[in-house]
Amino acid sequence: MILLDGKKTSADIKEEIALEVTDLKNRGIKTPHLAAIIVGNDGASITYVNAKVKACERVGFESTLIRLPEDTKEEDLLNEIAILNVDNDIDGFIVQLPLPEHINEQKVLMAIDPDKDVDGFHPTNVGKMALNLPTFISATPFGILELLDRYNVVTSGKHVVVLGRSHIVGSPMSILLSQKRKTGNATVTMCHSRTKNLKEITLQADIIIAAIGIPEFLKADMVKDNVTVIDVGITRLADSGKKSGFRLVGDVAFDEIAKKSEFITPVPGGVGPMTIAMLLKNTLLACQRNR
Amino acid sequence: MILLDGKKTSADIKEEIALEVTDLKNRGIKTPHLAAIIVGNDGASITYVNAKVKACERVGFESTLIRLPEDTKEEDLLNEIAILNVDNDIDGFIVQLPLPEHINEQKVLMAIDPDKDVDGFHPTNVGKMALNLPTFISATPFGILELLDRYNVVTSGKHVVVLGRSHIVGSPMSILLSQKRKTGNATVTMCHSRTKNLKEITLQADIIIAAIGIPEFLKADMVKDNVTVIDVGITRLADSGKKSGFRLVGDVAFDEIAKKSEFITPVPGGVGPMTIAMLLKNTLLACQRNR
Repeated sequence: MILLDGKKTSADIKEEIALEVTDLKNRGIKTPHLAAIIVGNDGASITYVNAKVKACERVGFESTLIRLPEDTKEEDLLNEIAILNVDNDIDGFIVQLPLPEHINEQKVLMAIDPDKDVDGFHPTNVGKMALNLPTFISATPFGILELLDRYNVVTSGKHVVVLGRSHIVGSPMSILLSQKRKTGNATVTMCHSRTKNLKEITLQADIIIAAIGIPEFLKADMVKDNVTVIDVGITRLADSGKKSGFRLVGDVAFDEIAKKSEFITPVPGGVGPMTIAMLLKNTLLACQRNR
Repeated sequence: MILLDGKKTSADIKEEIALEVTDLKNRGIKTPHLAAIIVGNDGASITYVNAKVKACERVGFESTLIRLPEDTKEEDLLNEIAILNVDNDIDGFIVQLPLPEHINEQKVLMAIDPDKDVDGFHPTNVGKMALNLPTFISATPFGILELLDRYNVVTSGKHVVVLGRSHIVGSPMSILLSQKRKTGNATVTMCHSRTKNLKEITLQADIIIAAIGIPEFLKADMVKDNVTVIDVGITRLADSGKKSGFRLVGDVAFDEIAKKSEFITPVPGGVGPMTIAMLLKNTLLACQRNR
C-alpha cells in the first residue's frame, strides 16, 4: 500500500511555485496577485480564507483580502467584483463560499471575469473544462489529477468509479478522467444516491473517487484487491478522546481498505491540502496567461 | 420491441412549435428568427443548412441564410457574427460546421453571443449544461433526451452505458443522464477507444447510447435482454442494390439487437430527424427568453 501524501505533495508544489515567482520577479515581469472577497463572519470561512492568504505570502504572491459585512447588498458585492475584474494588478480572485442567503451565489459567480476566475466555478470555465480546452480547473479536481499524476497512478484504460455527482468534485472528476489527457483515458462510472447495486459496481473499480460526505461509507467488502482510493470526504465526528473534541473522517473506512489498496489517500492529509496549492497554481497560470 | 420513432416525434415537436409561433404572433409578440451562416460549397453542409431553413419556414419562423465564399477571411466571418450578435431581430443563429481549414473553428464558436448560441456549442452554454443551469442543450443530446422522455423510457436508477466520448454527443449525454433531472438520475458509464473489456460493461447496460461512428459495432451478444438502445451513428455504406448507390448504417446491428430490445431507435429515422426539431426548439426558447 502506498499512501498518496497530499501534505507532502502540496508542499512540493508550493516550493515549485515559489521558485517560479522568484523567476518572474527576477525577470522583472510581475508578482502574481490573488485577491479574495469574504462576506460575513462565518468562522470556518474566515479560517479557510486566511489560510489562502497565508499560502500566498509563503510562495511570494501578493494578496488582497476584502472583508465585507454580513449585511452587504448583492449590488455592492457585484460592484467589488467589477472593480477586481478591471484591476490590472489582480491576476485572479475568488469569492469565498458560502455567501449569506440574501445574495444569489450563481449571479455572483457569473459576474467574475472568467480569465480571473481561479476557482474555476464560472460556467465558461466549467464548459472549457468539459471541452478539454485550456482553463482553470477547480481546486479539488485539479488537486486529485495532480496527486494521481505525481504518484504515477495509471488511469488509462482503468475503470474509475466516482461516488457523488456534486458540481465541485464528482461531476468534474468523471468528465476529466474520461478525457483524452495524461491523467485520463479511463472508463468512468458515475454513481450517486439513485444508483442501484452500488457494491456490484464498486467491486469492479480499479480506482474509486469517494465524494459523498458520508463518514466511512466505503467498506473493505465493497472493493477489490489492489484498488486505488481517493477519499474526498471530510466530516467532523465528535471524539472525546481528542483534545479538539472531534476527529476528521473521510468517506472511506481507511484502516480496513488500506490493507487491500495499491494507493490510498489519508484523511486528513490527502486531497484536502492539495486544494490551496492548486488555487495558487491557477493564480500563477492566470498571471502567466495575462502577460 | 418498441421503435423510438424520431421521424414521427420530430414531426410532433414541429407541430407543437408551429402552434406556439401562431400564439406568439397572435399576441403580437415576435416571430422567432433563426439565422445561419455557411462558408464555402461543401455539398453535405449546404443540404443540411437548407433543410434547417426549410424547417424554419414550415413552423412559421423567419430565417436568414448568409452564404459566404470558401475563401472568406476569419476576420470577415467574425464581423458577420458580431453583426448578428447585436441584431435584435435575430433570436438565435448558427455557423454551419465544418469551416474551411484556414478558419479557427473554436475562435468562431467563442465569438457567438451565448444567449443566441442555439447550437449550444459555446463553452458558456456547455458549462451551464454541465452545471444543470438553464441553457441551450445542443441538438443531438437534446433530441435524445426528448425521445426518451416522450416514450417514457425510465432512466432513473438505470445503468446507462455511453459509447464514444465526443464533445457533440457522448460526453454531454453522459453528463446529462447522470444529473438530477426528469430524464436523468441514471448510473452512467462512459466508454471509449481506451476502454478494456467493453463487452463486460455493455452486458450490464439497461440503456446503451452508441455514438462512435463504426457501422454495426454493437452486436446482439454484447447486450442483455430488454436493453434500450439509442443509435447515434450514421455511416454511408456502398450498396449497389440501392438506387442512391449507398445505404445508411448505424453503430448498432439493428436486426439482431432489435429482437432483444425493449426500445430501440432505427437508422435512419431515429435520432437524426430529432436534431433539426431541437434546433427549432432552442430558437423558440431564445425568442421567449429574450422578450
